[in-house]
Amino acid sequence: MSTAVSAPFPGLRATFANPSACVPLATAAHELVRELYPICRSITGNGVRATLDRLGEIVPLQRFEVPSGTPVFDWEVPAEWNVREAWVRDPSGRKVVDFADHSLHLVSYSVPFRGRVSLEELKQHLHSLPQHPDWIPYRTSYYREYWGFCMRHRDLERLPPGEYEVCVDTTLQPGHLTYAEATVRGATDREVLIYTHTCHPSLANDNLAGMTLTAMLARELSRIPRRLSYRIVFGPGTIGSLTWLAANETELKRIDHGLVLGLLGDPGSLTYKESRNGTAMVDRVARHVLKHLDTGTGPRARVVEFEPYGYDERQFCSPGFDLPVGRLTRSANGAYPEYHSSADNPDLLTVPAMAESLYAAMCIVDVLEANRVCVNLSPKGEPRLGKRGLYGSLGGPPPGEFENAVRWVLNQSDGSRDLLAIADRAALPFEVVALAADALEKVGLLRTRWPEDSTTGDTP
Amino acid sequence: MSTAVSAPFPGLRATFANPSACVPLATAAHELVRELYPICRSITGNGVRATLDRLGEIVPLQRFEVPSGTPVFDWEVPAEWNVREAWVRDPSGRKVVDFADHSLHLVSYSVPFRGRVSLEELKQHLHSLPQHPDWIPYRTSYYREYWGFCMRHRDLERLPPGEYEVCVDTTLQPGHLTYAEATVRGATDREVLIYTHTCHPSLANDNLAGMTLTAMLARELSRIPRRLSYRIVFGPGTIGSLTWLAANETELKRIDHGLVLGLLGDPGSLTYKESRNGTAMVDRVARHVLKHLDTGTGPRARVVEFEPYGYDERQFCSPGFDLPVGRLTRSANGAYPEYHSSADNPDLLTVPAMAESLYAAMCIVDVLEANRVCVNLSPKGEPRLGKRGLYGSLGGPPPGEFENAVRWVLNQSDGSRDLLAIADRAALPFEVVALAADALEKVGLLRTRWPEDSTTGDTP
Amino acid sequence: MSTAVSAPFPGLRATFANPSACVPLATAAHELVRELYPICRSITGNGVRATLDRLGEIVPLQRFEVPSGTPVFDWEVPAEWNVREAWVRDPSGRKVVDFADHSLHLVSYSVPFRGRVSLEELKQHLHSLPQHPDWIPYRTSYYREYWGFCMRHRDLERLPPGEYEVCVDTTLQPGHLTYAEATVRGATDREVLIYTHTCHPSLANDNLAGMTLTAMLARELSRIPRRLSYRIVFGPGTIGSLTWLAANETELKRIDHGLVLGLLGDPGSLTYKESRNGTAMVDRVARHVLKHLDTGTGPRARVVEFEPYGYDERQFCSPGFDLPVGRLTRSANGAYPEYHSSADNPDLLTVPAMAESLYAAMCIVDVLEANRVCVNLSPKGEPRLGKRGLYGSLGGPPPGEFENAVRWVLNQSDGSRDLLAIADRAALPFEVVALAADALEKVGLLRTRWPEDSTTGDTP
Repeated sequence: MSTAVSAPFPGLRATFANPSACVPLATAAHELVRELYPICRSITGNGVRATLDRLGEIVPLQRFEVPSGTPVFDWEVPAEWNVREAWVRDPSGRKVVDFADHSLHLVSYSVPFRGRVSLEELKQHLHSLPQHPDWIPYRTSYYREYWGFCMRHRDLERLPPGEYEVCVDTTLQPGHLTYAEATVRGATDREVLIYTHTCHPSLANDNLAGMTLTAMLARELSRIPRRLSYRIVFGPGTIGSLTWLAANETELKRIDHGLVLGLLGDPGSLTYKESRNGTAMVDRVARHVLKHLDTGTGPRARVVEFEPYGYDERQFCSPGFDLPVGRLTRSANGAYPEYHSSADNPDLLTVPAMAESLYAAMCIVDVLEANRVCVNLSPKGEPRLGKRGLYGSLGGPPPGEFENAVRWVLNQSDGSRDLLAIADRAALPFEVVALAADALEKVGLLRTRWPEDSTTGDTP
Repeated sequence: MSTAVSAPFPGLRATFANPSACVPLATAAHELVRELYPICRSITGNGVRATLDRLGEIVPLQRFEVPSGTPVFDWEVPAEWNVREAWVRDPSGRKVVDFADHSLHLVSYSVPFRGRVSLEELKQHLHSLPQHPDWIPYRTSYYREYWGFCMRHRDLERLPPGEYEVCVDTTLQPGHLTYAEATVRGATDREVLIYTHTCHPSLANDNLAGMTLTAMLARELSRIPRRLSYRIVFGPGTIGSLTWLAANETELKRIDHGLVLGLLGDPGSLTYKESRNGTAMVDRVARHVLKHLDTGTGPRARVVEFEPYGYDERQFCSPGFDLPVGRLTRSANGAYPEYHSSADNPDLLTVPAMAESLYAAMCIVDVLEANRVCVNLSPKGEPRLGKRGLYGSLGGPPPGEFENAVRWVLNQSDGSRDLLAIADRAALPFEVVALAADALEKVGLLRTRWPEDSTTGDTP
Repeated sequence: MSTAVSAPFPGLRATFANPSACVPLATAAHELVRELYPICRSITGNGVRATLDRLGEIVPLQRFEVPSGTPVFDWEVPAEWNVREAWVRDPSGRKVVDFADHSLHLVSYSVPFRGRVSLEELKQHLHSLPQHPDWIPYRTSYYREYWGFCMRHRDLERLPPGEYEVCVDTTLQPGHLTYAEATVRGATDREVLIYTHTCHPSLANDNLAGMTLTAMLARELSRIPRRLSYRIVFGPGTIGSLTWLAANETELKRIDHGLVLGLLGDPGSLTYKESRNGTAMVDRVARHVLKHLDTGTGPRARVVEFEPYGYDERQFCSPGFDLPVGRLTRSANGAYPEYHSSADNPDLLTVPAMAESLYAAMCIVDVLEANRVCVNLSPKGEPRLGKRGLYGSLGGPPPGEFENAVRWVLNQSDGSRDLLAIADRAALPFEVVALAADALEKVGLLRTRWPEDSTTGDTP
């Protein structure tokens, strides 16, 4: 008994036919980035909760609170960190740096401190970027007890000698690590995992762009018929994905595909990073989508090989899990100068870039939904297509391309390869091949063999 | 018990050492093209029978007549079509187009019609090539009831207004589909299938060149000792190969190699199209032969990947048969401007092109015959070649090349690869490697392991 | 129960960190080349014994004497050849060529002859190089009874007509074939075979460079802890390796890796020739080492595919043995103009070239010793490296590179690939990856799975 719904292609593309159709969503996401930008987020704390509250207005989110001290593989959930106030006054009493002005001013996870220190001693706790004197750097100290401030280098250089008053009024005590999940059920219980990191304070591309676009994607996904189920997780980097993995360890076998989303708003080229093995279906799908994605503006999308450095794919792709999880970003891991500084602000993001990122993610989802193995039911010779009306034009694609796709699907559908492999061999866009398969199925020349149709569970 | 004859290499090349040695055969074929050119052929009918009568004077052909209505997989054998006369008279009574002048003037499979029509109505039934105003196009209407004429555009434009008299005196009624087969038996019953299409009217390259050269090849094949058996089929395109497949379905398992031949006379580059999988022995052989074929004149031969568009390889390579059948042509599928028009006439063909085509087909056959797995009988270290006279020069190849081939054959003949693989790895022509293997076999250092030697039937 | 010693990387590189560190050894080897150059060696005879005596002062050598007539696969050990004197006097009684001046003057294995011959008859026995009139060629006649002299072409042309007196006072009679072996035992009985040919008379690059550097390598190897055992053989070409194979046939299964060394002193580019299959570990190691070897001087090292022509790898890589033996040379097989002539003398060699050759061989040995499969003991997610001190810098490599290697080793060590594969995928030098693995093993995050640890003997 098949549990699969008929999943007519295109899914999201029925609404979003190209990147420009995603512009309204990208515009809304960009506005939301501006709204959420001032909030101080970290790997724990109330800033994360406030952010998830707001994202939950886009798409319903289930909240998870994991107590500090919970063991998580080689790690444990840290103490929760919150900030009341934090500033430094110079000898004249003037506040020379104040967390209230910008959440980056305080080193994340700074321990509480109150006292008077000399300039020399203070400088042990100050961070700046001499090469970018007007930018505030982003620094953390999650696992070493420390307090510190981040400043514009120009301001730091102007600090007069004398005694400074320091206030770091933070709490770092047993609490919880917070993450949230949007679950979008499909006709089958085979799952797609989507993960985006929530732990960065006032940084726009890294990762308010990822959080807001992921919420948009989740909402749109919930509006279409789906074959696959989706678990879309908003959690902190590293400790968050580890915590999620620990909490869901027995259910990981349901995950067929995964995607880490982040840094999706800068104008650099869209970049897919392959999963650990580079041969997962999500890798094949993303390579196909990015190859055929040419918006005519901006740099070409690119695919890079796996490396054990980056975002939460490091945890999903660790050898003990080895999940088929790739990553979609634009300029990742310090590949843009504004990375991890106050210059990564909402003005760095562009709506066309965000629209293209969202569109690419939607296309990947669409192909994951519609890709399948088909079997030619009239495999001896070519069937007569003319009498079945399959030699006329059809919808969007030029007639020649559609007829070409029909021939490819018939010739290659012996049960040994999926439509995506056929599209790649034929050098045709997946959607044309999928439309040809739909048309052939309609006239009874083709049958889909969904993985979930098999009672023995063997997937081709 | 081995049923294999000793098949000393070279076979056909004992007579045809290079393309220029094929010039007499190509010249005779070209003359035959001129002779057969006026005949009106189609997928059925007397023109095909007349053509096969003439080809049967080159090589004995067994004739097959399959009744109209015979089911053939998803198709059925169509009604038989014949033409008595067909013309159009203008208002002044002058014949403006007459089938008697050129068989292309009548749309193939035109249904009978007799009557008077206005110029406007007539034009619904006229076809021309505005971009080549002096050429008559080739048009068919096998599966839609229709009559029509094809004209030079220059003539069509000059038609005066008024009433035209039309005569399409054709018969389209139950009859037969005709094809013929030359069977050339070898020492084993493993078969090579060769197919060439016979359905085109007055078109020289497409496919009188293929028909005449295939007949020449069949005749020469019958004159040499053969290990393999050959079934050389002359039949109409698509419905012909489908009909042949239906008639021979239980015997297809004997086919080890296959080749569709056609369009072999134009001056474009010789082109081999790979079989569906691209890994069949005929693919490996053809790649090798075309790589080493350099006649110094004209464009380099080329190999193209399989695609489900083309000639009868589409049927042989459909997933229900998936036969190891490649295709040898020159400019195929509309890749030359004269394609499917009266400009594809005998003057388009060149004897050097036809000679090269025939030579390449002969070389492919020769390598299919002589390729084999050998086993070094003195595999521990190199045997002493000097004392066996294998370090002197021998026949044609330069001594260094022959000695090099001897070393490669000895080193690689561990039973895991055939001589062709050795030739490819050594970057040597197959014939030199095969001569080295023959010489080594003669002095007892090598033993051939023919596929047919195995009583269990497993082929290496 | 593991029999493996802990083999901390680097081994030889603890002393020889780069090619320049090999200069003292290369200088000593070059001096030894000058000392041994005048000796007349051949595939048998006292010249070989004298050479092995001297090399035995570098590293202890076990001598083997195999009687003439001993069957060796398709061959047999030949008669032993020695020379007392050999010269030609012109009609005036002047010695125009004398073996005492240069060992190349006499064709190797010349049979005894004493008599008077005309110039015309003499010329049937004279060899020269018209294109290099000042060089004496090197000629042999091991298996055809013949005597002959090799001369400078300039001298040959000046020979006056008349009767010449010829003295070839050689012995060619039952005796022995001589070879020697340095055996360097390691913690396991898995073996590395190293072979260098000893049969050439006064030729410096071919192969005194190989003999002397191989002796140096053997001595250095004996000074470090070793996991593998080494059998380093000094024997004549072809018949020597065949004789060694026959004598050791039952023990060949212990050989995991092998290397033929020779022609290691000319200034051409260092060249590794792959083993018969090209996929042996020694092939992977050599490709890696030569890729990362850039001495900044001279041509880049290169890797060439196997071919059944060359030195003793031809015997080791014959199909009956198919041993994983590669070859390291500089300009091999006639790839330098001075090849097989008196111009291949000690002045052709350069110390930097010899040092680089020795260094590359040492690196290959080091990687063979240290390469292994490791298993991540904390495979679920990334372990916390900071608390284990693995995020600081360490020794030579830049900190970023070391931390990168740590991440790669953890991510890839699932038991399916060795450190070399990880280094290649990460595009890191093997030594950095091996140091990372050592560090991870020390903190308990990694376990080595040596092939010899397995009681069932299955090697990953």
